[in-house]
Amino acid sequence: MTSRPLLEGVLAPVVTPFRRDLSPDGERLLRHCRWLLENNCGLAVFGTNSEANSLSVDERIELLDMLVDSGLDPARMMPGTGCCAFPDTVRLTSHAVAHGVGGVLMLPPFYYKGVSDEGLYRSFAEVIDRVGDSRLRIYLYHFPQMSAVPFSIDLVGRLRDAFPGIVVGMKDSSGDRAHLESVLRAFPGFGMFAGNETLLLANLRAGGAGCISATANVNPAAIDRLFQRWRENDAEAIQASLNDVRLAVQQFTLVPALKKIVSHHASDPEWNRLRPPLVELSEADGKKLISDLEKLRFEMPGLKSFAQP
Amino acid sequence: MTSRPLLEGVLAPVVTPFRRDLSPDGERLLRHCRWLLENNCGLAVFGTNSEANSLSVDERIELLDMLVDSGLDPARMMPGTGCCAFPDTVRLTSHAVAHGVGGVLMLPPFYYKGVSDEGLYRSFAEVIDRVGDSRLRIYLYHFPQMSAVPFSIDLVGRLRDAFPGIVVGMKDSSGDRAHLESVLRAFPGFGMFAGNETLLLANLRAGGAGCISATANVNPAAIDRLFQRWRENDAEAIQASLNDVRLAVQQFTLVPALKKIVSHHASDPEWNRLRPPLVELSEADGKKLISDLEKLRFEMPGLKSFAQP
Repeated sequence: MTSRPLLEGVLAPVVTPFRRDLSPDGERLLRHCRWLLENNCGLAVFGTNSEANSLSVDERIELLDMLVDSGLDPARMMPGTGCCAFPDTVRLTSHAVAHGVGGVLMLPPFYYKGVSDEGLYRSFAEVIDRVGDSRLRIYLYHFPQMSAVPFSIDLVGRLRDAFPGIVVGMKDSSGDRAHLESVLRAFPGFGMFAGNETLLLANLRAGGAGCISATANVNPAAIDRLFQRWRENDAEAIQASLNDVRLAVQQFTLVPALKKIVSHHASDPEWNRLRPPLVELSEADGKKLISDLEKLRFEMPGLKSFAQP
Repeated sequence: MTSRPLLEGVLAPVVTPFRRDLSPDGERLLRHCRWLLENNCGLAVFGTNSEANSLSVDERIELLDMLVDSGLDPARMMPGTGCCAFPDTVRLTSHAVAHGVGGVLMLPPFYYKGVSDEGLYRSFAEVIDRVGDSRLRIYLYHFPQMSAVPFSIDLVGRLRDAFPGIVVGMKDSSGDRAHLESVLRAFPGFGMFAGNETLLLANLRAGGAGCISATANVNPAAIDRLFQRWRENDAEAIQASLNDVRLAVQQFTLVPALKKIVSHHASDPEWNRLRPPLVELSEADGKKLISDLEKLRFEMPGLKSFAQP
């Protein structure tokens, strides 16, 4: 167990751009990551909103190598590494830890449903044992609506007790404030990240670490402002304005909405492409999204200089 | 489009044995496959009950190479090849088709939930285009309870129309007889496999092709007998006795139950091991399972000579 500081603040599950042949566009990804870091936003690359589960293990390894080789600070990264098959999870996690990442975000194996806590415990224990590296920091990825494999409070406690300093936190994407607070009550000091910024203030007040939010891809500075000022008088007002942007975005499917926004503000149509099974927004939906955000005076300052080829 | 006959009859999603270090035990798998073929049971290797989604792509490729190199007939195989990321699905499918398999069983990309028919259509179209081989025969794997990504009738029709002779059938694991019959009414001649043998007679009467059932791993000859005699007077009686065995097995989680049965009848404790997140049956559950099957005079004739090391 090292004494490195744990991750905190705002991270984006970084959206992954694709070329015309649907191969990952490393150059555009790198520029977007640089813009996010410039806005004090950490890099939860290979999350749900990164379409990570539409990428092969090799593709994820090559992209992470590229980002680190390009000089981005791995300590600001929390790559997603949880796969259905533990050999894949072990491979991705070992690779990320070897790069010195700040932590990894780990989905449970998500194909088999209705599995026992014992089975999930063994999955994580197997991975931790095989990675065999004390630098490993795992954030459990609780996202029942997408993985359909939730973490029970019992399981979190068992993992935390068995692997202190390794199982250090959670991303709670349930959207359920009561759940988030109950985990923090059960495990004070647990590195809890809210799954979106609408719960950022509540999470910080309950002792949490920050948020990892899809919308941080497009609104990082404003979300970070709440993280910096959450003890101040204007915190509620900042939270309210963050919520307005979030609501405008999440009226549509998140990944295509985020890509439409980046594409529009970067004046770069190449960004508006997804891997199946996700599809781009219709023209009408895209127009409504951009127009609703304009009404909120939403901007992405500096994006063009980072985002354009 | 070739004129090879399409797959029919009974197939087992072949259970995958693991060694003490949880690596796949190719030797035991081969012996079990030989016993299944001896009982006129086809090999749907790498299905849900094979723990295929707990295997890496490389592990599945190596196991299939080993089975084919050992002389098993690839025309009797329908390997599962559907992954979350299309590059993985393309790789597994191309490899299986190059071996001359009878067909492939393809899950939809199953991480992202609530995706559109258009997105699923593009997923399959992308895979078919990239595999680019007229020998490809796809069976759509409909299993809403596990994948949480169902196929709509519209989508099945669109895929079948766009790729005639390639999208040739479905495994319907919904367990919903009305759904199975509605697909066959919409698409007469579609290669429909019931997801378990309790619907085999109904499926054959509705024009379906057979069944792919977990229980075929342990009860293949009896299930094949129904396939051979479904037009005879004793068909209902055979169906009823198959149902008794199925009910005894499915009172427990299927994969651990199947491995317990094989382990017991082969007198081989090595079979009773699973990859997490699945776990073996408790001792009490295992005893009840074996005893309930004994009451039904259940046997696995010849297994020992095939199954023992």
